[in-house]
Amino acid sequence: MTESNVTAAICLIGDELLSGRTRDINVQQIAGYLKPLGIPVREVRIVPDVQEEIVSAVNALRARYSYVFTTGGIGPTHDDITADAIAVAFGVGIGHHPDVFAALQARYDEMGTEFTEPRQRMARIPDGASLVENPVSGAPGFQTGNVFTLAGVPSIVQGMLQDIGHRLQRGVVVNSITVRASGLREGDIAEQLGKLDVEFEDVNFGSYPWFRSVTDHGVALIARSADKAALDTAAERLMSLVKSTGGEPELIEGEAS
Amino acid sequence: MTESNVTAAICLIGDELLSGRTRDINVQQIAGYLKPLGIPVREVRIVPDVQEEIVSAVNALRARYSYVFTTGGIGPTHDDITADAIAVAFGVGIGHHPDVFAALQARYDEMGTEFTEPRQRMARIPDGASLVENPVSGAPGFQTGNVFTLAGVPSIVQGMLQDIGHRLQRGVVVNSITVRASGLREGDIAEQLGKLDVEFEDVNFGSYPWFRSVTDHGVALIARSADKAALDTAAERLMSLVKSTGGEPELIEGEAS
Repeated sequence: MTESNVTAAICLIGDELLSGRTRDINVQQIAGYLKPLGIPVREVRIVPDVQEEIVSAVNALRARYSYVFTTGGIGPTHDDITADAIAVAFGVGIGHHPDVFAALQARYDEMGTEFTEPRQRMARIPDGASLVENPVSGAPGFQTGNVFTLAGVPSIVQGMLQDIGHRLQRGVVVNSITVRASGLREGDIAEQLGKLDVEFEDVNFGSYPWFRSVTDHGVALIARSADKAALDTAAERLMSLVKSTGGEPELIEGEAS
Repeated sequence: MTESNVTAAICLIGDELLSGRTRDINVQQIAGYLKPLGIPVREVRIVPDVQEEIVSAVNALRARYSYVFTTGGIGPTHDDITADAIAVAFGVGIGHHPDVFAALQARYDEMGTEFTEPRQRMARIPDGASLVENPVSGAPGFQTGNVFTLAGVPSIVQGMLQDIGHRLQRGVVVNSITVRASGLREGDIAEQLGKLDVEFEDVNFGSYPWFRSVTDHGVALIARSADKAALDTAAERLMSLVKSTGGEPELIEGEAS
């Protein structure tokens, strides 16, 4: 892959996400971690705790994107089946990783807690995988080829990401700015915005309306580009565009809401 | 389809979700709306504002699930390409829908706002689609076969869902209860929980740890079943299980966090 086409996908695993019990935050967290590395997230899938669904999604994604991040399903309970699914996806065996087993044993011994069979399951790592350190709760994630298997609990995902960045090829960093225009409606600037998108070949423009109430609505206009100079010019043009409609634009670095 | 296999998938469309700018809430909202209708969400995909990606995801999902819900990309700006993508996915034409065009024209006339060409784009509906009313901002969603195309703004999605329920075949309603156990660790009950999952054929058990701080952590144990009596028994067994570890369980209806 060249710098400009390093890409990522995320596969969130868990019935609780599909049922609506849990509102995901890991996509934001992982995308935010990858952005300064120049690695855009291009696709996300959420699948249930069903082995063939996990295998099929991971195999589709790892063939298509530079890196895949899975979250969820690596704990000690019966519905934690991600490690086995990854082994099946890669066609490799799986068993207790001796280093992980020893480290968990020591950890539980120290806590005076029995290292039960379910807890031992957290030492099951697909053959040939390298470990991803878990600074929060001990049981590691792992890397198999271009797939990183992480926990589901957000604070643990955050911790595990710190042991991943150094393994990734960097891409081209895309910077962005937001022009926030309270009270503006998309239709007011849609035509001019479309023209800017055609005019600026190396800038991508997005328009995101918010509508919280009759008095709290507006549009966030976002420009994204790897070309700093083009982005600065685009920002000025967006500011002028909003002013010309009588609005009061606010310029913010990054993709503000 | 029989009652027991009415299923749904959700396809979220938008670069802002993949970049992490926007944290999705529509999966929760749609899943919550479908749950009392007995229609579980089985898969979610998030794709960028790229026509072939939308077409490919929608076609994969509509072939596999009873219903598909898309969100996002039906506004007036250049990056709103969902209606065209749906027409391509179904191999049908697309043009201004006369009723929608007239209604939007009347709406903008009343507001004293020009009905510009970009605003007219919101009247573009795939041939043969039926409309989904938008009680919030006028521009409708639409139904094409088993695919419902909705807005991205959560308050508008909420409004549009009210015009969808009556079109859906109902499935078997799955009820759930949560036993919340503060201070418990998954490993403490994993073995017994796995045994319950084997013992109760018609109940699905899930275990969801939370870890916010050293003093605020625990496990939410969830049982799901279409069989009310089995669910009640399962709830009692989960309560006993937590008590037997010395914990203080709290029983909650539904999938509490």
